[in-house]
Amino acid sequence: MIIVLKNHADPHKVEGLIRSLKGQGLGIHRSDGTQSTIIGLVGDTSKLDIDALQANELVQTVKRVSEPYKLANRKFHQDDTVIEVGGAKFGGGNFSVIAGPCSVESEEQIVSVAKKVKASGAKLLRGGAFKPRTSPYAFRGLKAEGIELLLIAKKETGLPIVTELTSLNHLHLYNDVDIIQVGARNMQNFEMLSELGKCNKPILLKRGLSSTIEELLMSAEYIMSEGNERVILCERGIRTFETATRNTLDISAVPLLKQLTHLPVVVDPSHATGNASLIMPLSKTAVVAGADGLMIEVHPDPPHALCDGKQSIRPDRFDGIMDSVKALCRMEGKVL
Amino acid sequence: MIIVLKNHADPHKVEGLIRSLKGQGLGIHRSDGTQSTIIGLVGDTSKLDIDALQANELVQTVKRVSEPYKLANRKFHQDDTVIEVGGAKFGGGNFSVIAGPCSVESEEQIVSVAKKVKASGAKLLRGGAFKPRTSPYAFRGLKAEGIELLLIAKKETGLPIVTELTSLNHLHLYNDVDIIQVGARNMQNFEMLSELGKCNKPILLKRGLSSTIEELLMSAEYIMSEGNERVILCERGIRTFETATRNTLDISAVPLLKQLTHLPVVVDPSHATGNASLIMPLSKTAVVAGADGLMIEVHPDPPHALCDGKQSIRPDRFDGIMDSVKALCRMEGKVL
Amino acid sequence: MIIVLKNHADPHKVEGLIRSLKGQGLGIHRSDGTQSTIIGLVGDTSKLDIDALQANELVQTVKRVSEPYKLANRKFHQDDTVIEVGGAKFGGGNFSVIAGPCSVESEEQIVSVAKKVKASGAKLLRGGAFKPRTSPYAFRGLKAEGIELLLIAKKETGLPIVTELTSLNHLHLYNDVDIIQVGARNMQNFEMLSELGKCNKPILLKRGLSSTIEELLMSAEYIMSEGNERVILCERGIRTFETATRNTLDISAVPLLKQLTHLPVVVDPSHATGNASLIMPLSKTAVVAGADGLMIEVHPDPPHALCDGKQSIRPDRFDGIMDSVKALCRMEGKVL
Amino acid sequence: MIIVLKNHADPHKVEGLIRSLKGQGLGIHRSDGTQSTIIGLVGDTSKLDIDALQANELVQTVKRVSEPYKLANRKFHQDDTVIEVGGAKFGGGNFSVIAGPCSVESEEQIVSVAKKVKASGAKLLRGGAFKPRTSPYAFRGLKAEGIELLLIAKKETGLPIVTELTSLNHLHLYNDVDIIQVGARNMQNFEMLSELGKCNKPILLKRGLSSTIEELLMSAEYIMSEGNERVILCERGIRTFETATRNTLDISAVPLLKQLTHLPVVVDPSHATGNASLIMPLSKTAVVAGADGLMIEVHPDPPHALCDGKQSIRPDRFDGIMDSVKALCRMEGKVL
Repeated sequence: MIIVLKNHADPHKVEGLIRSLKGQGLGIHRSDGTQSTIIGLVGDTSKLDIDALQANELVQTVKRVSEPYKLANRKFHQDDTVIEVGGAKFGGGNFSVIAGPCSVESEEQIVSVAKKVKASGAKLLRGGAFKPRTSPYAFRGLKAEGIELLLIAKKETGLPIVTELTSLNHLHLYNDVDIIQVGARNMQNFEMLSELGKCNKPILLKRGLSSTIEELLMSAEYIMSEGNERVILCERGIRTFETATRNTLDISAVPLLKQLTHLPVVVDPSHATGNASLIMPLSKTAVVAGADGLMIEVHPDPPHALCDGKQSIRPDRFDGIMDSVKALCRMEGKVL
Repeated sequence: MIIVLKNHADPHKVEGLIRSLKGQGLGIHRSDGTQSTIIGLVGDTSKLDIDALQANELVQTVKRVSEPYKLANRKFHQDDTVIEVGGAKFGGGNFSVIAGPCSVESEEQIVSVAKKVKASGAKLLRGGAFKPRTSPYAFRGLKAEGIELLLIAKKETGLPIVTELTSLNHLHLYNDVDIIQVGARNMQNFEMLSELGKCNKPILLKRGLSSTIEELLMSAEYIMSEGNERVILCERGIRTFETATRNTLDISAVPLLKQLTHLPVVVDPSHATGNASLIMPLSKTAVVAGADGLMIEVHPDPPHALCDGKQSIRPDRFDGIMDSVKALCRMEGKVL
Repeated sequence: MIIVLKNHADPHKVEGLIRSLKGQGLGIHRSDGTQSTIIGLVGDTSKLDIDALQANELVQTVKRVSEPYKLANRKFHQDDTVIEVGGAKFGGGNFSVIAGPCSVESEEQIVSVAKKVKASGAKLLRGGAFKPRTSPYAFRGLKAEGIELLLIAKKETGLPIVTELTSLNHLHLYNDVDIIQVGARNMQNFEMLSELGKCNKPILLKRGLSSTIEELLMSAEYIMSEGNERVILCERGIRTFETATRNTLDISAVPLLKQLTHLPVVVDPSHATGNASLIMPLSKTAVVAGADGLMIEVHPDPPHALCDGKQSIRPDRFDGIMDSVKALCRMEGKVL
Repeated sequence: MIIVLKNHADPHKVEGLIRSLKGQGLGIHRSDGTQSTIIGLVGDTSKLDIDALQANELVQTVKRVSEPYKLANRKFHQDDTVIEVGGAKFGGGNFSVIAGPCSVESEEQIVSVAKKVKASGAKLLRGGAFKPRTSPYAFRGLKAEGIELLLIAKKETGLPIVTELTSLNHLHLYNDVDIIQVGARNMQNFEMLSELGKCNKPILLKRGLSSTIEELLMSAEYIMSEGNERVILCERGIRTFETATRNTLDISAVPLLKQLTHLPVVVDPSHATGNASLIMPLSKTAVVAGADGLMIEVHPDPPHALCDGKQSIRPDRFDGIMDSVKALCRMEGKVL
C-alpha cells in the first residue's frame, strides 16, 4: 500500500503517523519529493483500514498495490478450481451448460424442458422457484412448489438442479438443490453470502448489474472466508448507457477473471441482452473467451412464459446452439 | 400501452392476439400503417405481462405509456405525504436533518455525537449497527450492541433513531428503532421490502447504485403494496464512469421525484461523493433542489472512524453546514 | 411515430395539432383512453421534428417506431455491403485483419512491422500519423511525415493503408491513403462526416466512447447521405463504470449491428481493453460474434512505443493470434 | 509518480530501468517489499510516457501522484481567474448568466429574445448558428447568416455573444463573436483546441458526454498551452444509465472543479436534463454549488423551436428563474 502525503504536512505529525504504522508491524519506506512525500507500506496490509487512512488530515491519497482478496486470488492458488456436481464439471478444462426456463411453471413444463435440454447436451437444469421481480404486481414464482417440481425433473432426468435463493428464510427448502444461485441483486447481500459460506453446496454467484470485477471477487471471498470454497462466478451483463440491449455483456471480464482467480467462470447470455436472437453468437463468444460454462434460458413456449419470455429460446434452437458450442469446445480442447 | 407489430404479421394471428387482449378487459385501438401496425391498449394494463407480449412472434416492440407504479404515483395522490416521527417531519414543506456516525462505535462516541448534532439542529440520529462492507475482513459493526447504544443515545437526547437493516433475521432487534433504513445494496431485496411493508414504521429507502428513478419508485411500491405507506426516498449518488467522486450525486432526481411521487425525498451527500469537502455545497444544492431532508455523516474523530472516515465531518463543521441549510430553508419557505 | 397526449389536453388544441400533422401528409390514428390519448402517425416521419413535438404543451411523450436511419438500414438493403480495397474484403462472408503500430515512428519501424504482419496474414496496414492525445504534452505523431512513411511501407509490401484523420485541414495529405479512419472522439464531428461523404474512399468509422449503436448508425448515415456508401463500422469499447479494463468491449453490438445494418463491422480489441493479454481471447470472440474483420495494434517493441504500448503486442504474438483467427474463420465459413 | 514492479522482476533489468529513469533527471526512492518493489519518482514527471512505462515487462502498474495539468491547476495559481467580456464577469465572486435560443432562426426571433433576456438580467446572449445534430436530416442552423443575426442582436442590445464553433473552417466568421463555444462533442477535438489556443478570445469549453473531470481539465490545458488562458469550463450533464433525464447533471463537479482549478465554471441546466421543468431547480443548485455562471436556453415559442424545444423555456419563465438566481447570489455574496 502506498500513502501519498499532502504538501507541507507537519513533520511531527508525519513522524507520529509513521510510528503508528510501524506499531502495526508494517515496514515503512519513505520518499520525500519536492511536491509530496510518499510512504510505501510493506507487509500484510489487509487489516489496515484504508478509509481511516484516507481521512487522516496528513494524507492526500492512499493506493492499494495488491488485490484485497486472498482466497479467490490466483496468485496464491495457481491451479484452476474444478467444481463437480452430479457428473457436471466446471473449470480445469471442463465446460458445462446449465439450461432451463426462467420460472418453473408446471410439472409438465419443467420435466419436458429438462428432457429436451438433456438430450441436447445440457448437464444441469435451471429454473426459478423464487423470482425477484421489479414490480410487486408481477408473477413471483411458484416458490416451495417450484422447488418440488425441480426435484421431480431431477429425478426424471438425473440432471442436477440450479435455482436462486432470494432470502435466507427459504434456505431450509434447498436441501436437495445441487447448486444455489445468488442473483445479481443479492451479490452484495453480505448476510446471505456469509451464511452460504457455511453450507456445503456449490454457489453460483452472479455479478451485480453495476458491480466491478473486484467487487465480484470480494463477494466470492465472503463466501470462501466462511469455509465454502466452491464458488462459480457468472458474468451476466452490466448496466451501461446503451439501451439497445438490456445489459451490456462484459465479455472481457471472462479472460480477465481467469487471470485473477482460480474459480470457474460461466456466462449467462440470456440475461446479458434480453434478446433471444443474440443467444447463439454470445454463447459462442463465451467459449472462445475462456469461460467454463454457460447458463441459457430455454422455454417450450416463450410467448407464454410467465417471465422473461423475450430472452428465452425454444428447445430446438437451443439444440442448434449446443451444436456450435460443442464444435467450439472441441476446437478449444475443452471437455463438454 | 402500445404494441407495435412486426411488418407482414399474419393477419389471422393478429386477430387472435387482439381477441386475447380484449378478453382481458382491455379496449383496443388499431392503426395500420405502411410500415407497421400499432395497437393501443386502453384500460388497466398493470397486470399485463410486458415480457410475454414482447416474446410474442407478432410483436416488434411494446411501449408503456403510464407509469408502472400506482400507490407511489403523484397522479393518484396529489398532496405531499408528510412523514412524522418523534417530532421530525419530512415532506409538505417540512425539512429534517438526520446526522450521526457511519458506525456506532461506543456509548461515549454515539452519545456525544448525538448531543452535538442535536445542538446544531439535527432532528434525528443515524448510526450503523449492522454494516454492509465490501470486504469480509472489514469491521461490520457492533450489531445488537450497536442498536442498544443507539437507544441509549435516544434516551439521553430525545432524538429518534435511524439505522440500517441488513437481514430480516435481525428485525426483532429493531422494535424501538424509529426509522428502518434499507441500504442501496438492498433496494431490490424484494423479500425484505415486502416484509417491511407489513411493519408499522417509516422506511428510509436508499436508491441503488445503478437503479433508475423508476426502479426506486417500484421498490417503494413494493413496501406500500403490503400496507406501509410511510416511505422516505433517499438519493445517495449513482455509479457512473466518473471516478473523481465515489459516486455521482444525481441532483436532478430530486425535483423529478417530487413531480412523480408524493413521497418525501432526502439527500445523502456523504455517500454520494465520499469526500468531506463536498458535503457543504451538496447539502445546499439539496435544499434548493426541493429535497425534504438531508442525511449527513458526522464523527467526532474522522481519521479514527471504523468506517467511511473519508467522507465524515467533525461536529463543528456540521454546525456550519446547518447554518447554511437553515438560511436556505428560510429562503425557500421550508420549516426546518 | 406515436404521440401520447397529456391527460385533459384541450380538445380544440388537439384538433389543431392533428390538422397540422395531416397537413404534413401523415395519416393519423387516434385512440382515446381513460388515462391518455394516443396518436399514431402513419407515413414518412423522418422529416418530423421530434424535439418540437415533445415541446408541444399538449404532448406527454413521443416515441419512434421506426429507425431514424435509412441508407444504413438493412430493412431497405437486405444484402451485405462488401467493401473491397487493394484485395482486402470486408462483409458478405469476407474477413480481413488490419494490423500495425499505434503510431508511425520511423521508416524502419513501419516497414518491418508491415512485412511481419503481412507474413502473418494481415491484409491491411494501420499506423497513426496524426495522433489525438489527451495531454498536450504527449507525442502527437509524425504528421505528414508519418503518412509518407506509411506510403513507403505500402510500396514495399503492397498492403493498403488505414490511418486516422484528425482534422479536415489535413485531408489533402490523404490522397494515397486507402481507408480513412474517423476516430472515436470524432464520431460526432458532423462537419468531418459530411466532408468524408463527398470523398471516394472507404471510411472506417469508430464508435464513440459513449455513443449508442443508433448514434453510430446515424453517423454512418451522415457519410452515406452525402454519397459515400463505403462505411466500415468499428466497435472499440465503450466507457462504463468498470475500471479493470480501459473500456468495455460491447461484443453484443457486433451481432446486433449485423441485424440492423448491411455495412461491415470490425472489432478493435486493442483499444477496447488497453491490455495486451486480452487481445487473443477478444479477437476470437469477434470472429464468432459475426464480425467482418479485426484491427489490432502490433509494435516491434511495445515498452518503447511512443504511445499505447500497454495494449500493443509483438509480431510473434500477433502471428499466434492470426493462427487462431484463421482456424475460427474456417469453422465459421468466412473467407480470410 | 509511483511504479509498482512485478513480483520476481529480474534484478539486473530493474537496475537498468532505474538507471534510465535517473538519466531523465528524476530522483528515485525504492522500497523492496515481500510482495512487490515500489519505485517512487521525484521531480518533473510530466514528460514521462506513462504508456511506455506500463508496457515495460518489469512493471505491474504505474500510478500518478500529481495532476497531469499545470496551467489549469489551482496548486500553481491560487487566485480565481476572472474572465471579463463586454462588462460580464465570470469568476472571483462574479456570476453571469448567458441566455438565448438553441438555434438562431430569424432576426425577429433573436433580437426579441435578446431584449427580453437582457431585461431579466442576462449578461450575454447565446444562439446556435452552426448546429451539431445527430441526424443528417435535421436542421443544422442558419450558419453564416446566423452569426450575422447574432451580431445584429448584439448591436441592438449591447449583449456580448456566445456561439458554438463546429469546424475550424468557419473560424474566419467568428471575428466579432465575443466567446467561442466548444461543444461537448468537440471537447476532445484536439486540433480545434490547439487552434483556439492561438486566438484572442475567451473559450467556453463544454464537458464531453462521457469525459471525466480530469479530461475536461486536460482539454483546457490544450488551449492554455498555446497561450490562451481565458477558458470557461461548462458542466452540462454526463451520460449515465439513467434515462429519466437526457443526461445526468454532475453537480459535484462544480465544487470539485473550483478546488482543482482557478478557471471559472458555468452550468448548463438545459442540456443537462432536456426537460424545461427542471431548469429552475437546477439553476438554483448551480449557484449554491459555487458556479460562476449559468447558460440557459430561452425561446419565445418552444413548441416551434427548430431544435431542442423540449428543454427551452419562455422568456417569462426565465424571468422567474433570474429572480431566484439573483436572490441566491445575494445570499452567497456573489456579484451578478
